[in-house]
Amino acid sequence: MRLSNYFLPVSKEAPSDAAIVSHQLMLRTGMIRQNGAGIYTWLPLGYRVLKKIEQIVREEMNRAGAVELLMPTLQQADLWRESGRYEAYGKEMLRIKDRHDREMLYGPTNEELITDVFRTYVKSYKQLPLNLYHQQWKFRDEVRPRFGVMRGREFLMKDAYSFDLTEEDARKAYRRMFCAYLNAFDRMGLTAIPMRADTGPIGGDLSHEFIILADTGESAVFCDRELLNMPAPGLDLDFESDLQAVVEQRTRYYAATEEMHDTKAFEALPAERQVSARGIEVGHIFYFGTKYSEPMNAVVQGPDGQMVPVQMGSYGIGVSRLVGGIIEASHDENGIVWPEAVAPFDVGLINMRPGDAACDAACEKLYAAMTAAGRDVLYDDTDDRAGAKFARMDLIGLPWQTTVGPRGVAEGKVEVKNRKSGEKHDVSIEDMLAQLKAS
Amino acid sequence: MRLSNYFLPVSKEAPSDAAIVSHQLMLRTGMIRQNGAGIYTWLPLGYRVLKKIEQIVREEMNRAGAVELLMPTLQQADLWRESGRYEAYGKEMLRIKDRHDREMLYGPTNEELITDVFRTYVKSYKQLPLNLYHQQWKFRDEVRPRFGVMRGREFLMKDAYSFDLTEEDARKAYRRMFCAYLNAFDRMGLTAIPMRADTGPIGGDLSHEFIILADTGESAVFCDRELLNMPAPGLDLDFESDLQAVVEQRTRYYAATEEMHDTKAFEALPAERQVSARGIEVGHIFYFGTKYSEPMNAVVQGPDGQMVPVQMGSYGIGVSRLVGGIIEASHDENGIVWPEAVAPFDVGLINMRPGDAACDAACEKLYAAMTAAGRDVLYDDTDDRAGAKFARMDLIGLPWQTTVGPRGVAEGKVEVKNRKSGEKHDVSIEDMLAQLKAS
Repeated sequence: MRLSNYFLPVSKEAPSDAAIVSHQLMLRTGMIRQNGAGIYTWLPLGYRVLKKIEQIVREEMNRAGAVELLMPTLQQADLWRESGRYEAYGKEMLRIKDRHDREMLYGPTNEELITDVFRTYVKSYKQLPLNLYHQQWKFRDEVRPRFGVMRGREFLMKDAYSFDLTEEDARKAYRRMFCAYLNAFDRMGLTAIPMRADTGPIGGDLSHEFIILADTGESAVFCDRELLNMPAPGLDLDFESDLQAVVEQRTRYYAATEEMHDTKAFEALPAERQVSARGIEVGHIFYFGTKYSEPMNAVVQGPDGQMVPVQMGSYGIGVSRLVGGIIEASHDENGIVWPEAVAPFDVGLINMRPGDAACDAACEKLYAAMTAAGRDVLYDDTDDRAGAKFARMDLIGLPWQTTVGPRGVAEGKVEVKNRKSGEKHDVSIEDMLAQLKAS
Repeated sequence: MRLSNYFLPVSKEAPSDAAIVSHQLMLRTGMIRQNGAGIYTWLPLGYRVLKKIEQIVREEMNRAGAVELLMPTLQQADLWRESGRYEAYGKEMLRIKDRHDREMLYGPTNEELITDVFRTYVKSYKQLPLNLYHQQWKFRDEVRPRFGVMRGREFLMKDAYSFDLTEEDARKAYRRMFCAYLNAFDRMGLTAIPMRADTGPIGGDLSHEFIILADTGESAVFCDRELLNMPAPGLDLDFESDLQAVVEQRTRYYAATEEMHDTKAFEALPAERQVSARGIEVGHIFYFGTKYSEPMNAVVQGPDGQMVPVQMGSYGIGVSRLVGGIIEASHDENGIVWPEAVAPFDVGLINMRPGDAACDAACEKLYAAMTAAGRDVLYDDTDDRAGAKFARMDLIGLPWQTTVGPRGVAEGKVEVKNRKSGEKHDVSIEDMLAQLKAS
């Protein structure tokens, strides 16, 4: 993408009304624009990050055997009356009446709707196990939306729903999601720690929040230091296997959110292993058995011919919230430092002197070669001052910068900078082209 | 995808409440499930088609220089008061009040919101031309939603908005979209004819609808037969060029929707060139100048230093509606016949005898090789009867079927069928594997 054709409204000043660094940086880099309390337009740069996260989530859900579909944003009130949540949900639910005065709502979550889909089509245990997921915009009418996309009202969530015949199978489905989450967050460059959590309005008796640590986190969390450096299960994990060992490798260490905190157990840990920190919730998984299937009559025939309510769990990832969460976890005084897998572009190509024939030619060659090699490139072909260009590239935080200036080009060289380490070195243009061609 | 792990609730009976063939087939093939009047869940098979169409639209918008972002579904009423459309839009607009009694609405279109984004950031003609687009769910509270996704209430639309300094530039932006639309629809296997159209509630003085012909079309359309076989401009079109000739090649022939129909001009055509048919609108483009920029004060500084309201156009494609439209245009008595580019899977691989070691081994090999070659494969590994398997594959309409049976496998052969032509022929498994490896 040529910057001269792009829409990247970067601003120098930190906005006065943004309380946390991710919100400030998302506004300054032109990633989002607020359209109302807790409602945002995802400007082109922000949208690219959102799509990359969505795609990682999709790949890891698919790998774990979940099947993607898409439920609508608006739902019928009657469905929520069946589960008893219509009245119970409170003011966070945005209630709507259509032109015929039918009661609807903007879905804050989808247990009822997916249970309705399930009971329409699935009648036998032979069609199980089943895990259906979608990534769709949701709305929760927060009293005080804040922290930008971290606590917005209209937000993008991945929610998966598992259906099994027995509790044992349902707990296995839960473990599959537990492991898939570890892999997904790891791919985004995050260390997300599963913590025992309260089940809240979703219900059930088994629940983990996936928490990343950040000073600006909304809640206090407590965990064993051993969990901080534990590698993810890895993409070659066999999701058909039992997975008990992978889960227990983590759950045997202490980790809990404030609501579930057990001071005594925590303080029994050696002092150097007691991590007491702030955390951001990026995922939340629940096993709740027949909480929805029973009142909604989602039953399947078992091998013995008996009809039984299906065992369910639900599994959320805050896709839009993750954009903010990743920035909270990865930035420095100059701006965002994107992990490679979620960066809006892989490389920033900076032309120091557009109009100079040699610089232009070198840039065009590199731009074409990088693009052909599958790299997403943002090519700064603007007339801005060199200092402004560098500052902007640092601010938006692409993992690599390639700078093309007249002196270097005369020697057949460009400068490559790693955004994270700040390390720079000269590279021969020829070598770079050859390498790109081979990749 | 193994069918045994997939969620494909195909049904034998034609649903009684579906009036047109695309709606019937989408229900029978388990592509959609209705959740309320004009509101649908996109089940896995339907969702795959929706995503393929969305991706084609994205690629053709990008090729024409448009930049993708994402606006929210909910908008503030005040923004629509600025343009004067809040009261004017009528009952099709779904009006919502949040917990603080603030007036909001579910966006039926986005001229106001994008104009607000534009005026926030763009102040100079140097930042033009600009074309911003998104693909987002919208809501229009139709009195009588019908025909499945063809006239739903919650629907997915691609809408692009162009911004230019002068009318001349704006008309050029219009031509770029005109050409990009022809290419996009062509890639979906559709002949979409641009027809002079009424501008309706969007406004403006220049507008074309893109219409595909189908007996079940909602409106009467009239055109010159010459337009039916005109090839699309092609993906190598230079969008920097003027494009006048490409557009005029079409607009010089008669083509109009009912509202704009000129009986006299139409009847002046030779009788054999008079096409009077039913049509489905799949896209609609508008040039409306300063209709929104003037009341909303979206002004830019020109080269002469004067501030002038920006010239705008908007460009819609009915992404979810297209799924139905393509089925209307491409089906037979056995089911859907997907054009290759939008098919939910490229190939249906049918194992005639799961459990038979030779059949299973051949299927696994072919499944792996096809997948490695980038084909989307639906592998029917179920225990259903052969007849049911064939009927289901025909019904869901994948372009190619590869059938693996014990007799063929003994001879090292499988049967390949083209869904559209119905032609079948035997292919050596070895040849197929070699071909896939080379592709």
